Formats: sequence, C-alpha cells, structure tokens
Amino acid sequence: MAEFDLIARIRQRVAARDDVVLGIGDDAAVLRVPAGRELVVAMDTLNSGVHFPDETAPADIGWKALAVNLSDLAAMAVEPAWCTLSLSLPQADAGWLDGFLDGFLGLAAQHRVALVGGDTTRGPLSVCVTVHGLVEPGRALRRDGARVGDTVWVSGSLGDAAGALAQWRAGAAMDAFLRERLNRPTPRLALLPALRHAHAGIDVSDGLLADLGHVCAASGVGAQVDLPALPATEALRACFDDATRYRLQATGGDDYELCFTAPQSAREAILRDATDAGVAVAAIGRVVAGTGVSAFDAEGSPWRDARTGYDHFAA
Amino acid sequence: MAEFDLIARIRQRVAARDDVVLGIGDDAAVLRVPAGRELVVAMDTLNSGVHFPDETAPADIGWKALAVNLSDLAAMAVEPAWCTLSLSLPQADAGWLDGFLDGFLGLAAQHRVALVGGDTTRGPLSVCVTVHGLVEPGRALRRDGARVGDTVWVSGSLGDAAGALAQWRAGAAMDAFLRERLNRPTPRLALLPALRHAHAGIDVSDGLLADLGHVCAASGVGAQVDLPALPATEALRACFDDATRYRLQATGGDDYELCFTAPQSAREAILRDATDAGVAVAAIGRVVAGTGVSAFDAEGSPWRDARTGYDHFAA
Repeated sequence: MAEFDLIARIRQRVAARDDVVLGIGDDAAVLRVPAGRELVVAMDTLNSGVHFPDETAPADIGWKALAVNLSDLAAMAVEPAWCTLSLSLPQADAGWLDGFLDGFLGLAAQHRVALVGGDTTRGPLSVCVTVHGLVEPGRALRRDGARVGDTVWVSGSLGDAAGALAQWRAGAAMDAFLRERLNRPTPRLALLPALRHAHAGIDVSDGLLADLGHVCAASGVGAQVDLPALPATEALRACFDDATRYRLQATGGDDYELCFTAPQSAREAILRDATDAGVAVAAIGRVVAGTGVSAFDAEGSPWRDARTGYDHFAA
Repeated sequence: MAEFDLIARIRQRVAARDDVVLGIGDDAAVLRVPAGRELVVAMDTLNSGVHFPDETAPADIGWKALAVNLSDLAAMAVEPAWCTLSLSLPQADAGWLDGFLDGFLGLAAQHRVALVGGDTTRGPLSVCVTVHGLVEPGRALRRDGARVGDTVWVSGSLGDAAGALAQWRAGAAMDAFLRERLNRPTPRLALLPALRHAHAGIDVSDGLLADLGHVCAASGVGAQVDLPALPATEALRACFDDATRYRLQATGGDDYELCFTAPQSAREAILRDATDAGVAVAAIGRVVAGTGVSAFDAEGSPWRDARTGYDHFAA
C-alpha cells in the first residue's frame, strides 16, 4: 500500500463537522473559529517502546494517542474541536491502519472531534497528534491559579496504569483491568462543568506529585497530599501492597486523570457536577504557603520516596 | 539534561507575539484568532534517515522541519502565525538542541512565527511540526481550482534538492550549493501577493509531476509541462546531463517550490508581484481538458520516465 492509499483510507472514515471548511486532502486544513472563542492547541507524541510496549494492539495505540491529547484540553477546561495526525510507520500495513483508526476515530467520534489533516510517513512507529479546542476568552484553566487554602482534587482513580506497567516490567501478565486503564485512558472532558469552579488544573501524565508540583511552581504555592485519600481501584488494591500502591499512585504516570485545585467553598458544587457527569472526584489534599509538594501516610507521617515523577530522559 | 530542562531551554529562546495569550509551559497554548480570519493548519514530520541523512547538521534539521510546514501555508497563500513542535530525541543533548533551535527559531523569526507549545520525548530522532496560519474567509488557495487554459507556474528552481540527494546516494560529495538547497529550502511566503492571481496551488515536495498531478486530480483537469522551461540553476546544469536533469526536475521531491496555475490574463501581474518579492517565477506549461500530466522534451516529444514522484512507502 502506498502513501496516498493510506491517506485515502483515513479520509474515507473521517467524520464531518460544520466548521471544517477544508479537511484532509490539500496542503493544509481550513477551519472556522467562532467569534468570541480563543483557540487552544496541544500536541503530544507517543513513541513505540517508550510510551507503550511494542506489542500494544493498534486500536489501543490509536485510542491512547488521541486520549492523551484530549486530556490536555480537559485539564484546561476546553472543549475539543479538531485534530491532526502524523503517523510514522515502518511499513504501510492496511490491517494495522484499520485497527489504529478503530481506536483513534472511535474516541474522536465520542467527543465530536474531526480529524482534519496531518501526514503519513515511513519511520519507526510514532504517533504525533495536535488537538485544537475552543474556549471563552480568559476561561482556560491554567496551572498558575492555585491559591493557598484551595482543596486539591483528583478525578477517577490513580495508579492503575503504573500498576499495569510495573507488572509488565516485572515480566508478569498485566491484570486485565489495569491493562485496560493503561491502554484506554479516559480523557476527563465530562468534568468540564465541575472545572468551572477550579482555580488551577493539570492532567496526571508524569505522576501525581510531579504534576501537582508543576501547578505549585507555576502558582507560587506548596501542597500537601494525603496518600490514604488517593482513590484506588479494587484491582490495584488486589495486586499490590499498600506501600507499593502508594508509590504507584503518587509517582506513576500515564493515568490521565485530572488534578485540580478549587476553593473550599466550591466543594458541594464540584461534587454535584462530577456526580452529574458520572465521574468520581476525590479531595486529596490542600494548597499551602511555601513551595513543593509533601505527602503524608496513614499515620500522618511524611512519606519519602526517591522517585517523584516520570522523566522521559531519565535512565 | 532532563526533559524539563530541555523545555526551559526552548522556552527561553522563544519570541513573543501579541496574539499568544498563553505559550509554552502549560497543558496547551491559548491563542487569539482575529475576527474575520479563517484558521489554516498543516502538520509535517521529518524522520532521520528518511527525510534527511542521519549526519545532517542540527541547525539544518531545525530549519527544514519548520520550512516544509511553512511551505504548506505558502502553497495555500496563507500568512503564518504560530507553530508547535514535538521533538523525539535519542538522548537529551544540550548542544544538539541549541543548534536545532538556531535553525528552527532563526526561520521562525524571519516570518514572525511564534513557537507556542509541543513536547519533547525520547525516541528515534524525529521532528513533528504543526503550523497555524490565518487567511481571509474563502481566500485559501486550494488544489481544486485549476481551470482549462490556465498557465502552470513554478517558483525558484527545480531539481536542486534531488540533485544533492542523487550525489549523496551515489556516495559522492554533495555540491555545496545543491546541499544548501536540500537542507535549507525557502518557504515561498514572499509570493503571497503573486498568488492572489492564482486559481490553484501546491508545493513541490513529492516531485513536480506528482504534485501537479494532485492539482489536476482535485480540479478534474489535465496538464502539459515543457521540460526545457523548467527553471534550473547553474549548479544543477553543471553537475548533471540534460536527461538526468530533466528527471531530477520533473520527479525529484524536496524542492519546496510552489507550483500554481493562473489565468493567462494574470501573466503580467504575476511577473510584477514576483519581481517585487524578489522571487523568480517561470511559466512551465498549461492546464488542458482531460486527466493526468504529460511532459514534453526539447523536440516537443512526449517524455517517458518510470518514476513520477516520491512515495514514502515505495521500496
């Protein structure tokens, strides 16, 4: 299969949107941004063997490549609109592409995101996605708005993806539920109404403490996290002891849950909006004066762990 | 050097733009699209060993990665505004990154393009760029507007980049001028005024006949090209015989010149605007009824060559 056949195959399956003036098939896409909206752009790449095990199913790769990008928009409380896709493949494989598109376009359809362009090329398997969203001026949720006294919240559950990776690295079989959480993260766009009450937000991709640390650094504040308050699934509890679980939850990346801070007065409104959205949220700590993030165990003692987050260039 | 140091190093060197509400450093960038403009988006990836020889200087890689994207906007007669960059590197190397940024940001500054986000990650060397431009509604130059009777034009000169690659593949030293054309293509944004007279446009990345073929297919027309009319530099003429040169010019990719069609009545206006821009343009053929692209040699005989363009997935 040749490059243009690949593109034709993708183009056939892409959904329409009224604000796409010109989609796949020209040198660039032409899009209509409504008046009174700011444009929000995020871009993330997944490389085989770095961001997912080489043997990951193509549909899972497609899902995850879009999910991690939509998660960035969710973290900024932004409605997604369009995406572009650059796909590097060792060889043009129609079966692989069809599976990939099942995952990618399946998730795109759930959020009415139109794939409007990009390119396909030869190279080691790599998926680069740019997502575009729209937001009312000044309403994007940034990292630098956390205030002393805010409550720290997280969505869903933490540690599942890191648990699956820990099993895989140990040469064990991945628990089916944990593997699904690793391969099919849910971008928490359903929480946009709840995020209207937030001061600052980020998605948990590098690890909770590292990502909350970015919020604190940008906001000029510190934070305290109660490890026993971190939401954990039954599957994670069943597979790991408490000490290991805390480490996975506090420092493991790849969950793509949202971490956000909000004033204590917003507690009921956040819980109500999250319930309406069908997504659990948990209060896990507080924003304090100072710098850095501290974590505390069940006895209220400071928790110490050498690893505080994921660095793509660390050994 | 760690991932966040890489990002800090990039962020330090990035130029500002008034319409960037929030640039590098959050989950996404926030941008202001002026009223009365459509948004135009292109995305292209360069992989080491596929799109450039492994030993290419980092500054040349940086330049070319942005240039090929800006070329897509130029082909659509669109003014660039912002870009995002996803950089996959085998290891975090400050010297390499500085060189890369010299090329990338040097070209960005020439066109007042702001780098507003992206990501850095570990993986085989790969550079993925998304560019965003702005255009008056309905004024983007598409592939599907060519009309029977139009003149076919190209900018600059053709075949230089393919000539350099041919020398490199033969194990010979690349001619210095041709190598510069391969490594530092000029996105023809200076031709935007001339393109106001055009009916259809594309940039020559896959090879003239292939790319003009895309225009013809999209427009439902055919085209005839006069090979002796193709603009050739002295360096290309000095390095290759006429037959080889025709093949390089007609089928070699990577020149990133513009190919556009315009009514014959626009001839003087195009020449005047191109002269004002300081960019040569040459009339090389005509749009005809039918399908496909034919090329003719100096004797007016049909030219036959098996290769009609570059396919990234061809053997």
